Amino acid sequence: MTTEECIDFFFKPESIALIGASPNPEKLSYTILESLLKMGFQGRIYPINPGYQEIKRLKCYSAPGEIKDKIDIAVFAVPVSTVLEILKGPVENIKGAIIVSSGFRETGPEGKRMEVFLKELLKEKGIRAMGPNCLGIYDTISNVDTFFIGREKIERPPGGGVSVLTQSGSFAAMIMDEMANEGAGVARVVSYGNKVDVDESDCLEFLEGDETTKAIVLYIESVGNGRRFIEVASRCAKKKPVVALKVGKREPGARAASSHTGAVSGRYEAYEAAFRKAGIIEVASYEELKDACKVLNRYSPVAGKRVLIITDGGGIGISVADACEEAGLRVPELSTEAVKGLKEKLQAFASVRNPIDLTGSVRDEDYVAVLQEAFGEKYDLAIVSLLWGPPLLTRGVAEKIRDFADSCGKPILICSPGGKFSGEVASSFTAVGMPVFFTPDSAVRAAAVLCGGKVNP
Amino acid sequence: MTTEECIDFFFKPESIALIGASPNPEKLSYTILESLLKMGFQGRIYPINPGYQEIKRLKCYSAPGEIKDKIDIAVFAVPVSTVLEILKGPVENIKGAIIVSSGFRETGPEGKRMEVFLKELLKEKGIRAMGPNCLGIYDTISNVDTFFIGREKIERPPGGGVSVLTQSGSFAAMIMDEMANEGAGVARVVSYGNKVDVDESDCLEFLEGDETTKAIVLYIESVGNGRRFIEVASRCAKKKPVVALKVGKREPGARAASSHTGAVSGRYEAYEAAFRKAGIIEVASYEELKDACKVLNRYSPVAGKRVLIITDGGGIGISVADACEEAGLRVPELSTEAVKGLKEKLQAFASVRNPIDLTGSVRDEDYVAVLQEAFGEKYDLAIVSLLWGPPLLTRGVAEKIRDFADSCGKPILICSPGGKFSGEVASSFTAVGMPVFFTPDSAVRAAAVLCGGKVNP
Repeated sequence: MTTEECIDFFFKPESIALIGASPNPEKLSYTILESLLKMGFQGRIYPINPGYQEIKRLKCYSAPGEIKDKIDIAVFAVPVSTVLEILKGPVENIKGAIIVSSGFRETGPEGKRMEVFLKELLKEKGIRAMGPNCLGIYDTISNVDTFFIGREKIERPPGGGVSVLTQSGSFAAMIMDEMANEGAGVARVVSYGNKVDVDESDCLEFLEGDETTKAIVLYIESVGNGRRFIEVASRCAKKKPVVALKVGKREPGARAASSHTGAVSGRYEAYEAAFRKAGIIEVASYEELKDACKVLNRYSPVAGKRVLIITDGGGIGISVADACEEAGLRVPELSTEAVKGLKEKLQAFASVRNPIDLTGSVRDEDYVAVLQEAFGEKYDLAIVSLLWGPPLLTRGVAEKIRDFADSCGKPILICSPGGKFSGEVASSFTAVGMPVFFTPDSAVRAAAVLCGGKVNP
Repeated sequence: MTTEECIDFFFKPESIALIGASPNPEKLSYTILESLLKMGFQGRIYPINPGYQEIKRLKCYSAPGEIKDKIDIAVFAVPVSTVLEILKGPVENIKGAIIVSSGFRETGPEGKRMEVFLKELLKEKGIRAMGPNCLGIYDTISNVDTFFIGREKIERPPGGGVSVLTQSGSFAAMIMDEMANEGAGVARVVSYGNKVDVDESDCLEFLEGDETTKAIVLYIESVGNGRRFIEVASRCAKKKPVVALKVGKREPGARAASSHTGAVSGRYEAYEAAFRKAGIIEVASYEELKDACKVLNRYSPVAGKRVLIITDGGGIGISVADACEEAGLRVPELSTEAVKGLKEKLQAFASVRNPIDLTGSVRDEDYVAVLQEAFGEKYDLAIVSLLWGPPLLTRGVAEKIRDFADSCGKPILICSPGGKFSGEVASSFTAVGMPVFFTPDSAVRAAAVLCGGKVNP
C-alpha cells in the first residue's frame, strides 16, 4: 500500500465527524460546521459533543464510537487534553484526523511532550492525521472546508488548477482570501501545521496523480525527511509545475518558525539545493508566491525566457523591461519583418521596438494587431500592459486579447496599475479568465515563474 | 537671479492661460480646463482660441497678446506647428509655458528638429517652459491641475508632504491614482516630459526651499547636466529625504526610454554613483517607489536599521522577518527585561521573541502593550502586521496604535494582507492617517526606504 492510498480519503471523504461541535457561534467548531455546510459537502456529517442532541438540524453524537459508520475525516476542535482523551477511547472507525487544536509542540517543552504522546496514540490506533495547530483542508473538488475562519472574514476562491500546501494556517487563509478577491481559483489547499503525521511529501504524492491539480504551490517552514521530499517532489515536478517558498531563511525568521509550527528550519542553502535538485521553481517572497498562484492557474511554464512587451504608456513599458532584465528574462528586439509589418498596421506615433508603445492614441484592435504581427517564434511570452487613460481604449479589449491568447497557446500576462477606475476596467480581464497583475514588478514576477525561475537559468 | 526665482511662478501662479481651449469634450484641452476648475484654482484663467467668444462662462481670447495681464503659466494644448507659430507671435506677457503637446524629439529626427527650434524660440522670448510631451503640474498648494486625464479615470490625491518629479506622464498619472486610492497625499507633482527647458534640477532647487514638501520622489529616465544635478540634489538631500528610481537601466528599457521622452539613458552605474554621492535614497522598482511615497508622507527616515516585528499570524511574521534580512535590515532579539515584562502582560500562548506573535487570541490592547514594553531604545522602527481573523481584534486597534505612534515619535508601519474584508478593516488605519502596506514585502520595502536604502549601509 503506497502512501497515496493511505491518505486519499482526506481528499475524497464520504463522511466527516466534527469532534467538539457546538451551537455557540463563539466556538471555532461552530465556524467549522458552517464552513462545511456552506461548502456544500455532499457526504455524511456527524457532529460529536456529549452535551447536545442536535446541532444545526444534524443529529449529535456523544463519541466517535457511537457512530455506526466509518469516519473518513474526524476534525478535532477540542483542547489538547480532550484530543488525547478521545483518542484513547474507541476510535476504530476513524480513518483520518484533522487536529486543528493548538497547544502542542509550538508552545514549548510541555506541548512537545503532548505531541509525542499524540503521535504514539495515532500510530497505535492506525489513524492518519493532519495537524495539530492547523486549519486543515479547503477542497473545491470534494467540497470540504474545515477552516475555522468564517467566509465573512476570509473569502473562499472558486475552483481552479492550483493546489497549495502549507504549514502555516494564516498563510493558507491569506492566500485564499487574496485569490478569491482577484477571481483566481484553487483546487485543494492543505494547512497541515505541526505535521505530527501527514506532511508535504504525503500530500505531494497524492497531488502527483490528482488530475484537477495542474500546479502545486508550497509554503515551507521546514521539511522533516529531506530525502523522501526530493524523491517525491522530483517525480511530481516532472508531471506539473511545483513552486516553493522557503520561509525562516535566516536567523530571525527561523527563530519565529520554531515557535510557530515547532519547525526547525535548517540551513537555507540545503533547501535551495534540494529545490534545484527536485526541479522545483523557487520563489523568494510572499508576493512572488501569490503571483505564481495567479499565473499558474491559467498558464503552463514555457521553454525560453524571451518576453515581448506591449504598452500604451511609455513609462510603464520601460519599468516592465527593466524588471525583466533584473529577473534574468530577455527582451529581444523585434525582427525586421515584424517592424515592417507593424509600421504598416500602426499609427505613426507608435514606438515600434520592444517594448512596443502604442501611446495614448491606442485603439483596442491595435493590441491584437501587434500580437498577431510580433508575437511569433521570437518570443516565449508577452506582457501586455494597459493604462486606461487613452480615450479610445475600451473594456472590449479584454475579450479580443483573450481570444488571441486562446488561439496562440502562449502566455499573455496582463499588467494594469492604478486606482479605482483602472481596477474596475481591468476586471474585464478577470471576467474572461485572464489574471491581472497590478504592477510591472508583479507581472514580471509571474513571467519569471513561467520561465522556470532559478531552475531554468 | 537664481533658478528658483526663475521658476517659482509655476508653483505660485496668479494667472493661467490655456492655449487651444475648447468646449469639445473630446479635446485634451477641454479636460485640462475641467481639471483647473475642479481643482479650485483661485487665480485668473484665460481660455485662448480664436474660434470662440466664451468657454465654460470664461471669456475666450484669440491670442496671448490680446490678454492685458501677465500670464504666469500658458498651457499649450495645440499641435506642434501651432505651438511654434504662437511662440513666433506676440507672447511678451507669458512667463512660463507648459507644453503638453507630443510630436517632438520622442518621434524621431523631424520632431527633434522641431524641438531644437522650440528651444530657440523660448530662449529668444524669455519664456521658461515645462515639456513638451508632458502632463504638467498637479499642485495641492496652489491648486493647479493641468493634467489632461479626467478625474473619473485618474483620481487626484489629497494634500500631503511628498512631491513627485517625473519625466513620464503616465508614471505621474499612475502614482497619483494609486496614492489617491490608498488615501495618501502629495504636495506637488511635476511631469516635465522631454525637458526642453525646466528639468529635475530646476524643480529640485525650488522644492529645496518649499516648506510643504517634506520629501521628494524622482522618476528618472535621464539627467542632462549631471554635475548640476548632483550639486542641487546634495543640497536638497541635506534638508529632506530625496528618493529616486532610475528607469531604462539596461539595454531594452533604455531603448524604450529614448523613444518615450527622447531620453538618452546613459550608463546605469553612473546614476548609481551620482545618487550615492548626492545622498539620494535609490529604489529599485515601481513598487518600491510607490511604497516610498506612502511611507514618506507620514514618517521621516531613521538613523538605524533595527526592526521590531509584531504579528498575530505566525506565517506573516516569519515572512516579514525574512524580507527584513533580505533587505539588509536587522531584527534583533528582545532584551531580557522586555521578555520578562511581556510575559507578565501577555497571554501564555503568545510567542515572546522578535517577531512577536500574539496569535489568533490577540486583543486590541495587546498590540499597544507590546509596543509599550518592547519598542524602546533597541529598535528604530516597528512593523505591525495584522490578520483580521482573530475574533477579539477590532477596528479600534487602529486609533490605539496611532496614538502610541504619535507619542513615541518612531515609525510604526502597518502590514495587512488579504482580500475584501481585510482591506476594509485595514482602512481604519488609513482613516487615522497611517498608511497600510498590503504585503510583508511591501511593508519591508517601505521600512528599507526609511532606513536609508543603499545610502546608509
